[in-house]
Amino acid sequence: MMNIAVAQSGGPTCAINASLVGVFRESLKVSDIDAIFGSVNGIEGIINNHLVDLKSMILSNNDMELLRQTPSTVLGSCRYKLPDWKDDEAVYQKIVENLRQRNIGAFFYIGGNDSMDTVNKLSEYFRTIDFDVKVIGIPKTIDNDLCITDHTPGFGSAAKYVATTMHEITRDSIVYSIPSVTIVEIMGRHAGWLTASSAVLHAMGETAPHLIYVPEVKFSLENFLSDVRQEMSKHKAVIVAVSEGIEVPEGVQSGVVDNFGHKYLSGIGKYLEEIVRNEIGCKVRSIELNVMQRCSAHISSRTDIDEAEAIGAAGVRLAIKGETGKVMVFKRKHDMPYTIVIESADASCIANQEKLLPSEYINSNGNNIRSFALDYFMPLIQGDLSLIKENGIPKHFAIHESVLK
Amino acid sequence: MMNIAVAQSGGPTCAINASLVGVFRESLKVSDIDAIFGSVNGIEGIINNHLVDLKSMILSNNDMELLRQTPSTVLGSCRYKLPDWKDDEAVYQKIVENLRQRNIGAFFYIGGNDSMDTVNKLSEYFRTIDFDVKVIGIPKTIDNDLCITDHTPGFGSAAKYVATTMHEITRDSIVYSIPSVTIVEIMGRHAGWLTASSAVLHAMGETAPHLIYVPEVKFSLENFLSDVRQEMSKHKAVIVAVSEGIEVPEGVQSGVVDNFGHKYLSGIGKYLEEIVRNEIGCKVRSIELNVMQRCSAHISSRTDIDEAEAIGAAGVRLAIKGETGKVMVFKRKHDMPYTIVIESADASCIANQEKLLPSEYINSNGNNIRSFALDYFMPLIQGDLSLIKENGIPKHFAIHESVLK
Repeated sequence: MMNIAVAQSGGPTCAINASLVGVFRESLKVSDIDAIFGSVNGIEGIINNHLVDLKSMILSNNDMELLRQTPSTVLGSCRYKLPDWKDDEAVYQKIVENLRQRNIGAFFYIGGNDSMDTVNKLSEYFRTIDFDVKVIGIPKTIDNDLCITDHTPGFGSAAKYVATTMHEITRDSIVYSIPSVTIVEIMGRHAGWLTASSAVLHAMGETAPHLIYVPEVKFSLENFLSDVRQEMSKHKAVIVAVSEGIEVPEGVQSGVVDNFGHKYLSGIGKYLEEIVRNEIGCKVRSIELNVMQRCSAHISSRTDIDEAEAIGAAGVRLAIKGETGKVMVFKRKHDMPYTIVIESADASCIANQEKLLPSEYINSNGNNIRSFALDYFMPLIQGDLSLIKENGIPKHFAIHESVLK
Repeated sequence: MMNIAVAQSGGPTCAINASLVGVFRESLKVSDIDAIFGSVNGIEGIINNHLVDLKSMILSNNDMELLRQTPSTVLGSCRYKLPDWKDDEAVYQKIVENLRQRNIGAFFYIGGNDSMDTVNKLSEYFRTIDFDVKVIGIPKTIDNDLCITDHTPGFGSAAKYVATTMHEITRDSIVYSIPSVTIVEIMGRHAGWLTASSAVLHAMGETAPHLIYVPEVKFSLENFLSDVRQEMSKHKAVIVAVSEGIEVPEGVQSGVVDNFGHKYLSGIGKYLEEIVRNEIGCKVRSIELNVMQRCSAHISSRTDIDEAEAIGAAGVRLAIKGETGKVMVFKRKHDMPYTIVIESADASCIANQEKLLPSEYINSNGNNIRSFALDYFMPLIQGDLSLIKENGIPKHFAIHESVLK
């Protein structure tokens, strides 16, 4: 008999709790697994010995359904960067001590490419000291920028939110008789996947978004203004989708850098709004989709949530087979009918890597997405959850804040 | 036999097209009504003789269902302020000429308190010149600030969006181990109804929003900072709901004034974010719910949409009875079981008036909403539409932009 631990890390998505359900539900089926510990605030919970007994918290299938429809990370999150063990072994020794004390035989880390760095470092250290704890990474990120996997859990729900909301913003934008420009700022530090997904509106017969700017294309203010002017000659209300990560002149981004060396970005939409107001002089507004694009679980993609649970469960099966240092990945077999299989890859191949939008998805002007790319996005946004409601709004599963302190 | 005309005005909501369906569907039942004209861009369409034949556009029950789930104003909108007829009769003469030419016997104007000003002025002018065209106002506004009526169509869907999204933002905010403040800016120039509706989360057992600031209470930066500090001593993640319309020091609001004398507001959330960062120094972010709170039809309240259709239909019945210069209103009979009836009021009593949040809804500290007020909000956010989808996202009814030009 052994126990296991699971943790959630990085920026919230709508699918991280579904992957937790996947790990939990699959572990219940394994007779060798006894306690299922949740680590509070990602790997920090293991380091600080702050673990909770999930079996005493997730009590029923109904609780699991609630978790599947609850956005963000029910166990909290962190952005802790594990040092190289050769530089600072103390923290690794603490982890080993705490895992050993709890008789934990496998650790599942749900997170983005930073978390996969943790999976890689931990599993390598455990191999080095011959400590038999399996470490498996379960991918998640709305940015969809993980290598090897076809897509990441969390991305489909975010893309569905972006497409649905862009559709609604389009309706909102065309009501007045005067020409206007609406700039919608979408998350994505370096990869334009989520911004590009707004192009699924084109399959609805919409001309919007008329312009789509992703970080993969070098941004030029001159070209931008000329693009906007050209679209204004064709459409009364021009809708622009722009990634937060496009390169604009220095000083626009706040420039604060997080523990992983990421810059906090904000204000690109507002910045372009000012440019359009000053240079073109028309009615213009900017809209930041903000955290809603990563936490709007009321409009999750069922495909995404089901897959997020399935890939968590597959992680447990892989650990039981004795593998470690692996990250679970999706392989797409067909777009239509949409078919995927779950495989695994070495964490070392995924950690700290970014997968950018393929250049062939982007049109020759660098300001929109080619229609064939919609075959990639479309299957990921399909289906709805049957939401459990209370007082007219979706109910959430939440652990009391005193437990998470 | 006569024809009728219908127009939509003011800021978009999720329910304006449902009221259009109400007018349309009810008119189909009246044997005396022949053509049903849609006026493009509110009253401007009547002035400029830009009318479309709705029977040739709304072809089926399916089209009406699509309209019910389509946000914003399918016929466009305007913010045109009708002058006093004694100052400028020419525009009134143009309206009369165009209505007469099309044999229009009744005009239905779906809009907010500005539009009810138009209803009032037009009906008075028509009476003065003895021109027999009935003018009926159908209320709408997410601000819920119309007098006499218990609430306005569009408010319930906006309130449901705000509550659902605040719930999700709450989940998003509590993931990190460090203390944080999240400030959510909600629409409402002078009335705090929509901001106050975020308190329905308290009925879900949430402590968030921990602080709610509405324009009805004089805002003090000192009190705000002391409130935030106090809540931070109790909660790791403090969630603040703030109306865009609270009074802050001069220079924060852009100060641009629209045709009706309204100031365009923006940036209050951002402003308070900076204040908290500088004065308290903790992790802080601000989120503007922006136009999503008025156009997120994917999460409309079914109660709201059904009522919006019903009140449009009731307007037609009133005009057929020979009344004019009236605005349709809801009277609430019970909170539980929720029961309303539709009546009418003189447009002169509603035009240019604002109904503010009752002071008894606000707690004695002026920084939250009392729990008994939830009985008012709760029935308005109940129920969902069975959405018609295409490619995984809700389908919209749209008139080609060339028709609306």
